[in-house]
Order: sequence, then structure tokens, then C-alpha cells
Amino acid sequence: RLDKSDTPPSTGPSSLSFRSHTCGELRSDHVGERVTLCGWVQYLRQDQFVILRDFSGLTQVLIPQEDSAGDLKAALCDLTVESVVKVTGTVRRRPDGQQNKAMPTGEIEVQAESIEVFNLSRKLPFEIKDFVKKSEALRMQYRYLDLRSFQMQHNLRLRSQLVMKMREYLCNVHGFVDVETPTLFKRTPGGAKEFVVPSRDPGRFYSLPQSPQQFKQLLMVAGIDRYFQMARCYRDEGSKPDRQPEFTQVDIEMSFVDQAGIMSLVEGLIQYSWPVEKGPIEVPFQTMTYEEAMRDYGVDKPDTRFNMKLIDLSEIFLSTEIQFLRSAVSQPGGSFQAICVPDGAKLLAGKDLENLKQTAKTHFGQELTLVLVKADGTLKSPLKKLLSPSDTDRILQRTAAKPGDLLLTAAGSSQTVRPLLGHLRLHCAQLLESRGITVRDPAAFHFLWVVDFPLFLPKEGEPEQLESAHHPFTAPLPEDMELLYTEPQKVRGQHYDLVLNGCEIGGGSIRIHKASIQQYVLNNILKEDPSLLSHLLEALDSGAPPHGGIALGLDRLVSIMVGASSIRDVIAFPKSFRGHDLMSCAPDFVPEEELKSYHISVNWLTKQK
Amino acid sequence: RLDKSDTPPSTGPSSLSFRSHTCGELRSDHVGERVTLCGWVQYLRQDQFVILRDFSGLTQVLIPQEDSAGDLKAALCDLTVESVVKVTGTVRRRPDGQQNKAMPTGEIEVQAESIEVFNLSRKLPFEIKDFVKKSEALRMQYRYLDLRSFQMQHNLRLRSQLVMKMREYLCNVHGFVDVETPTLFKRTPGGAKEFVVPSRDPGRFYSLPQSPQQFKQLLMVAGIDRYFQMARCYRDEGSKPDRQPEFTQVDIEMSFVDQAGIMSLVEGLIQYSWPVEKGPIEVPFQTMTYEEAMRDYGVDKPDTRFNMKLIDLSEIFLSTEIQFLRSAVSQPGGSFQAICVPDGAKLLAGKDLENLKQTAKTHFGQELTLVLVKADGTLKSPLKKLLSPSDTDRILQRTAAKPGDLLLTAAGSSQTVRPLLGHLRLHCAQLLESRGITVRDPAAFHFLWVVDFPLFLPKEGEPEQLESAHHPFTAPLPEDMELLYTEPQKVRGQHYDLVLNGCEIGGGSIRIHKASIQQYVLNNILKEDPSLLSHLLEALDSGAPPHGGIALGLDRLVSIMVGASSIRDVIAFPKSFRGHDLMSCAPDFVPEEELKSYHISVNWLTKQK
Repeated sequence: RLDKSDTPPSTGPSSLSFRSHTCGELRSDHVGERVTLCGWVQYLRQDQFVILRDFSGLTQVLIPQEDSAGDLKAALCDLTVESVVKVTGTVRRRPDGQQNKAMPTGEIEVQAESIEVFNLSRKLPFEIKDFVKKSEALRMQYRYLDLRSFQMQHNLRLRSQLVMKMREYLCNVHGFVDVETPTLFKRTPGGAKEFVVPSRDPGRFYSLPQSPQQFKQLLMVAGIDRYFQMARCYRDEGSKPDRQPEFTQVDIEMSFVDQAGIMSLVEGLIQYSWPVEKGPIEVPFQTMTYEEAMRDYGVDKPDTRFNMKLIDLSEIFLSTEIQFLRSAVSQPGGSFQAICVPDGAKLLAGKDLENLKQTAKTHFGQELTLVLVKADGTLKSPLKKLLSPSDTDRILQRTAAKPGDLLLTAAGSSQTVRPLLGHLRLHCAQLLESRGITVRDPAAFHFLWVVDFPLFLPKEGEPEQLESAHHPFTAPLPEDMELLYTEPQKVRGQHYDLVLNGCEIGGGSIRIHKASIQQYVLNNILKEDPSLLSHLLEALDSGAPPHGGIALGLDRLVSIMVGASSIRDVIAFPKSFRGHDLMSCAPDFVPEEELKSYHISVNWLTKQK
Repeated sequence: RLDKSDTPPSTGPSSLSFRSHTCGELRSDHVGERVTLCGWVQYLRQDQFVILRDFSGLTQVLIPQEDSAGDLKAALCDLTVESVVKVTGTVRRRPDGQQNKAMPTGEIEVQAESIEVFNLSRKLPFEIKDFVKKSEALRMQYRYLDLRSFQMQHNLRLRSQLVMKMREYLCNVHGFVDVETPTLFKRTPGGAKEFVVPSRDPGRFYSLPQSPQQFKQLLMVAGIDRYFQMARCYRDEGSKPDRQPEFTQVDIEMSFVDQAGIMSLVEGLIQYSWPVEKGPIEVPFQTMTYEEAMRDYGVDKPDTRFNMKLIDLSEIFLSTEIQFLRSAVSQPGGSFQAICVPDGAKLLAGKDLENLKQTAKTHFGQELTLVLVKADGTLKSPLKKLLSPSDTDRILQRTAAKPGDLLLTAAGSSQTVRPLLGHLRLHCAQLLESRGITVRDPAAFHFLWVVDFPLFLPKEGEPEQLESAHHPFTAPLPEDMELLYTEPQKVRGQHYDLVLNGCEIGGGSIRIHKASIQQYVLNNILKEDPSLLSHLLEALDSGAPPHGGIALGLDRLVSIMVGASSIRDVIAFPKSFRGHDLMSCAPDFVPEEELKSYHISVNWLTKQK
């Protein structure tokens, strides 16, 4: 007799609970067992079946039809959709022809013997079915319903499992220490994106840090040796698409390590924690210098899942008679470059091409010149009559353009032409995909390291002044060390970005560990007031080990893994793009009384935007 | 030949680093191996040895004395204390008589062959030695030095390991999902202890929540089934000893579970994650009702490591001729109670006794009457001449007081007498311990559940109005359900507190899962505006499963485990008791300019305190 007890197991997802099994668990092996399930009513069918759902799946419950079971039948038939019940019954094989191959539990059903109704549900604002389209606002307002969908359950559970594996790798495999750092901290000088938190000391504010950067370095000075934290970070950027005011980064710092060491660590981390069902990840990842990335892809975070690289055609035009091209390419930093969109001439409409040119003009202040290669191999282009046959040949040869392809070309400063073509490359990939062409394999995960970034960049609006490309703590490449004192704008940093499918999912660096160098960078190059970082400088002077680290954007990484279009889909309770919680209506007004202890008042008269 | 490579291993605490071994790792097994160590100079001895330290321990490095190694010798001898170096050399057995048994690496030393000096240290404000006493303020200001001590390294590492084991238990053993909930949330009505965070919407503020209570319940409504989070929580309590404005709780919530289920889960959690070196933990834990705890210990979080329970002597005095006693015990709720302090009469001085009486008067408004049992068995007490010989016998019998013992007695309302004697019980334990008596085993860990708390308490200052004893979401005991509508002050809640060695380290409850009951509690009993929690009420009405959970105070738990006197010793970067970060000087002033985008200004004229 198979009639096992319907008590919960001691471990696993049903331990310690009212149920004996989850709704996704029962198979034909269980036939004859007495089981207890708890779940939500997905739907009722013909007063014959109740389909019960929990996070793990669906089970069909058979409603008894005998007169002797009238009360039970009535209770089951009276259930509303999304009510919560406990059903005890016996697993039986579905009659022949009634099996459902598409349903993991489709071979069995549970013959109900008793029911407890925990809660009847009101009529809900939307159905809990993955294919039911809901507006983003409705999803956010009723987030607790939205999260019931199998897709959202999958996203949050995958995230939890990924983080658990990452922790195992860091703690158990490599001896890292999980250290929590404060989120009520001192304001960073010029930290315009930091939320402030008023304190009870008049005029004094805490600040919610954008990252634990200072703390992780101080932990290395403190001899913690290997630190990590799933760190909550804060950034007040107002309304930006797909940004959240609070987000999570996998924050890592190590002592006595070099750039190669951190990169190996992270490769191992991704490989170890990668979900089996997403296929294996190969290490080491491809590495590219910043210069190569800009040259070939026009961006510092190339999507390497497809080609369409930038091609520099400048040398063809060094001695051209086309005046505007020769002038463009012979200027310092000038170039003539192209990307070749395969089948672009065939697939893109006149309106698409107009849009491309418009984008170039509006966002980059650049003329874009199109060259369509017609089916017969002849060109259609404003350049056509200007080009000599040999120039044409060389262009087609260098770009490997075939009949039906489209060339996007631009002449001007590489500083502009590269980002323009880098941008249009991605735009064209999307356009082609919208026409049904597979440009990027949606199941592919291309990891890429970008290295050798410039350490400093000209300050926006003040180009004779330098600012840190990433942050002031990044160490120079050892071979560029001397340039720090002579031509700092040429110094490359020991910084590395991790890129996945064209998204930056992490960045880190080896840090400056000598107080004198850090002071020189702050004082002489960045012209910052070093007193604001005096505690860090003092720490570096107190026996700081060489150290470096990285921060990975967990929300972004998970969203790419699950193929979500927004990081909101991998966060349990995200804010709207305006930073609002649509469920609870945060942020909200606070009585003036309660602000008094913080010595602040609201400037109602200030009219801004 | 044992000369193994000095390259780092692929896993473990030295993987991917410049070192081959840690400074605490080498034993006589390693003799002959070429190794590389990285660490801090603990001290130099007679130009012969450098003692190198990292998080794992100390290793003695032998300075070569040959003329041919002059540069190496000079480099080593020039090191300042706390400088950071890498030393490569060969492990050798220490000469006979030079072994140090007290040092785990005391059988070996490393003969230096090369050195790289990463950083020389300035003279530090204090030495990195556990026995060097430092002021709390200095420790906080130079936290990165304070953390180098073996004690602080131990505390932070034990914390990290404890948390890792807890996660393994919750995720891997019981199928919990780690979900991050927002910390920028809506202000709780009357949430006077919540920090506010101004937003860019004029007059609107986020609030940093004191716990994820609403979110964890919403996650149950969302079908997450089993949630946990190491949750950062915030509480603005101004200056309170050993409280931190931000702290961490192990936050747990489960669906389809009862009180016994949550209690088993937590017992298993503690047992699973408990450090081996602290000895085994036995489960189930002792359970006591709130009523029993108050009756026997005078507090709702009894320290059960020692006896000295409260003894109710009321019945002896129901018919006494001592007027003030008879009147006290015959009033409703009146009683005469005692605790017996073993050897108290012998060990406590007159000044101690005066202090006890003073405390009773000042903090409890109560007369304390002392009864000293002298060596010859006779009493010394103001009561002595009032008591009949039979009363005296009965008192000595009931209290089991022996010669040399001290009885503390008080007559009055149990509401006052119990907390008074509960307080003095702990005070006397401390007093006895300060006299060298072991009252509580410092290595003992007594876990205790306290259950059956009252659901509501009379509001302070407004005793005819009820307020929640814990929070408004706690469900009544099923057997008290009817009382909710008739005598709510008598309802006991499905609340449970976890107590360790007399400290509350956690509390939780089974929640109300029916909207109608929750609404009744908010509207009719607590007289709160339910519109402020409308999203929660709506959620309960949308198919909420029965659920419950708990939150454990991680900082407090770890501090008791490691025997720290303050939770500051188990937090990497704590705030001072006034809420300041003494290292970075947070909170700090913020330029008025930067407050503009938040539409707030500082009320400099407000004088408070």
C-alpha cells in the first residue's frame, strides 16, 4: 500500500509547512499517495476540476461528484480565482486521453478528500497569467499580484540562487569575508547624485553612498585581506530610464593581487554561479583594450555578438580630390570611416535611412553619407559621382560590402565619428532584427574585458582641466607611471570593465596604495581639496597593502541572464522611472512637526521644473 | 627535494594572490619549502628577526646576516612597524630551544631570500596588539587600525561565517528565496524613529524603514512562499547606549506555517550555523509563556543561566498583622515578593545594599525591604520584629534562604514589584560576579522562547486606549479569537520572542492574513487611519496565504557569541553612541546649493534641547 503520510518532509521546499508537496512536484510515481497541497486557485473547470498553483507549478484537483461529498464539492465550486486553500487528497493517474504533456504534473491529478479555505480572493485588477498583458503602472501598483506570475517567480528565484552560488564561491572557495559597510556616511565632495539624510545635529547630513568604495579600501588597510558584499547602493539621478534610486552591486576587494588576479577571480565567479540551464561559460573572457574597442566598435562596451565593425577608410582619401573628405582626413584626429550593414540596402526602407541621417545630425552633429550597394553591384550614393572607380573598388574591398549591403560613412574627427558609427551599428542591428533577421543570438552570452582605459579625461566644459575617467583611486599602469608627472592625459589606468552583450556589468581597478601618489593625483592633477579625503590618505600612510577590486551590477547581470527588458523585472519592489513606489505612494508628504527634529523645512516657494 | 613552487594555490585564502601561504599557516611539515608571505611588520627583534602578521597569524622571518646579503638585511632592518612587505624565503625548523609553543607557527621560521616593500608605515596612534588598551574614540577614529587586531578580525570573520551558514540552511536546506526589499520607502504613520530622505518632489520624503515588515508580508501574498534577507534596517533613536542608527536583521517569512513551524525553523537555523568551537546547541529550546516569565523572573526576557527567581510570599501575609503588608497583598494585583541572593548577606557591603534600595526608590518608586540571614540563622531586617516566628520560618522555607543569604523583598502591585525584582535580580548577579562569584557561566548559551504575549497593551499616558504590544499585524491565539470582539485587552498574540542569555535577540509572529480581521484591529481597536495601510489591506483581500515570520538581531547575536561588550565590536564601521562616524566626520554640513534640488533648507534658528 503506497498510502504514505501526508506530513511535511524535514527538508526541502515543503519542510515545516502545512503541505506535504508543492504544486509542481507530483508525478506518476506518487500515484496512490495521500498528499496535502496548499496554493492559489488558478481556475475552475466545469465544476469538475480546480487547478491549484504555487511557485513551483500547477496541479489538477478533482472535485468529487458523489452526493456524500456534497459539502466538499460545494466548497470547491464556490472558490473564486486566486483564493488560497489547502487540499488533502489522493494522487491518481489521469484517465487515458486526459494526460497533459505540456504540464509537468499532467500525468496525475489529486482526488480531493478535504479542503480548508484560508482566504477567498476578491476580483483582482488583472489575471495571473504570464500571457496577459498589463500596463507597467498597473503591474507596479499591484506588485504583489504581478510577482505571482511564473516569469517573475523565475526571475527572483534565479537571482537568489545566483547570489547564493556567488557567495559560496567567494566565501567557501576563496576565503572572502562578507563585511557590511554603512549606508549612512559622509557626503562625497561634489556628490551631486547622493541622497542626503538629515540628522538631529542642525545642518548636518548623512549621505547614502553610491558605492562602498572608501570602505572597501579601508578594509584592505585594516587587513581584512578579501572582502565582498552584496552592497546596496544609492544614486539620485532624477528620472532616467531603467535606473533605480537603489540598486545592488557585487562588491569585491582583495589585497596582494594584480589586475590579472581580479580578472581570474571574476571569471571563476561567473562560471561557478552561472545557472546550468543557461549553458556553460567559457573562461578566460575575451580582452580588448579601450583603444581597440573604440577603434573597432566606436564604444567602450562593445556588443561582440555580431560583427559590423567600424572600418577606417581614411587612407583611401588622403589624396582624394573630394575636397571635404581630404580636408576631414588630413586634419589631426580626422578620419573617414564606415560600417557595412549586411543586406541593409535590401531590408531598410527610405524612412529608416532618413532616421539614421537625422540621428547623426541631431545627436552627434555629423553628416552621415549612405552608400547603397545595389543588386547589380553598382552604388547609389551622393558620393557616387565623386568617387573614382578605383576608390569605389577599394571601398568595397575594404568593407567587404556585397550587393544588397548598406554602407554608413562619416568623415570628421574620430572623437565624433567613432561614437556615431558605434551608436548606429547597434541601431542597425535592432532595425535588422525588427525585420526578422537574426543579428544577435538571444541565447548567447558574450563576456568581454575592456582594459587600458585612460586614467584621466578632459573635464566637460573645462577641457584644459583633467578629471578621473572612473575615480581618483585608480592606479596608473606601471609602465605609464612616469607620465603621471609629465603628461598625465596620456596615462592609462589599471582599470577593467566587464561587458556582457554590449552592457557594462562591472568595473574595477587596482587602486593607488601609496599616500604620496594618491596625494599627487588629488592635489596636482585633479586640483581637489585633499582635506576631504584626509582619512583615506592617512590610512594609505598607515601600512596599506597593494589592493584592487571590482563591482558588478547585480540587477543588470540578472536582467541580461533572464532576458528581461528592464532591471525592474528582476527587482521585487522597484521604483517607477520617476523614482516613485506606485504601490505605497512613496515618497510622500511628512508632517512639518516630524521634520522639526531634523532642523529642516520645505521650501514650498522654490519652483523648479 | 621539497622545494615546491612558491606560486599561489588555486583555491583557499591565498588563491590568485602574490603570496603562496598565509602568515598563520606554516608548520614543520613545510620545512624546506620555498614560500612567499605578504603581511605587516608586527615587530623587529635585535636585527635578527622580523615578525610578519596577516589576518591568520604571525610568522618569524629570519634576517640573513651574511655580508653577501647586505642589501636584503638593510631593507629588512629599516622596516618600520606596520609596514607592508612581501618576503620570499625557505621554511626551516627553528633551532632547538627556540621553538615557541604558544605560537601556532612557533616550530618554524622563514629564512628571507628576497623582499619587496609595498608600503612603509608612519608612526601610528596606537600599537596593533590586542592587550594594548585604546580609548573607544581613538579606536573609532582609526577604525582601519583597530580592525587589524586579532580580536576584531575574529569577530568580523565569525560573523561572515555565521551568515554564510545561515544562508546555506535557509536557501539550500529549506528552499528559502533571498529577496532584497527597498530601503527607500513610504513613511510609517507616526514613525518618529524613521530617518527621512528628501526627494526631488517638493515636500515629499522617502523614509528608511525600521524593518521590511510590510514587504515580507507582501512577498507572501505574492506567492514567494519562503523569504529571507539579511536586511539593513534603520532607527533614529538619537543617543542610546549600544544602539546603532543602522543595523542588520535576519529577516524571515514563510507561508502555510504555524508558530511551531517557525520556532523549529529558527532552532534548526541556530543549531546549523552555530560555530563548532562554541560547543553544540541543543534543540528544542526551552519555552516559557510571557506570564511565567514575568512571574518567575520579573522580565519578558529572562536570563535563565542562573536561578534567583522571584518568589511570591503573598499568601503568608494575607492574614498578617503587619498593616502595610496586609493592605498591599489584599489589593487587586497586590503581592509581596522576594528574591534570595545566595551569600548576599556575606558578600554585599552596606553601600551595595543602600544602592539597591536607592534604585528601587528612584527607578520604580518602590520600597525595598532587605532581610539578611546571619551566619547563625537569625535575621537582620526592619521586618524582623514585626514577623512572628512562624512567618519567619515560612519565609525562610519558601525562599530556601540559608545563613549568609540576602532576601530582597517588596510589597505592592505586581506590575511594579515584578519588574523591580527582575531588575535587581540581574543587578545582584553582576554584584556577586564583581566579587568573584561565578553566577553565570560565561561560556553558556541559554536560548529561550517566550510566547503568549498580550496582543495589546494600554497606551502610555492614555490607558483606556490600547496599542499593539508588538505590531498591528500579529494574529491572536486561535483560542482567544472571540475575545478580540469582547475583551481585546485579554487577547494573547501568536507572538514569540527569542531570548539568549537574557537578551532579546529576535521576535516574530504569525500574522493576520484576513483583511476583515486586520481592518477590525486597525479601525476598532487601535483607532488608526486604515487608509495609510490600504495597500496592505488590499493585498490581504487578494488571496493572502496564512503566514508568519521572525526577525533576528544579527549584531546582538554575534556580540553575545563572541562575548563582546558592545555591538560596536561586531560591526566593521559603527557609529558612536551619538550617531557619528568619527573617522570621516559624518554627518557633515552640506552646501545650501546642494539642498536646493531637494527643496529643503536648514532651520538654523531652531534651538532645541
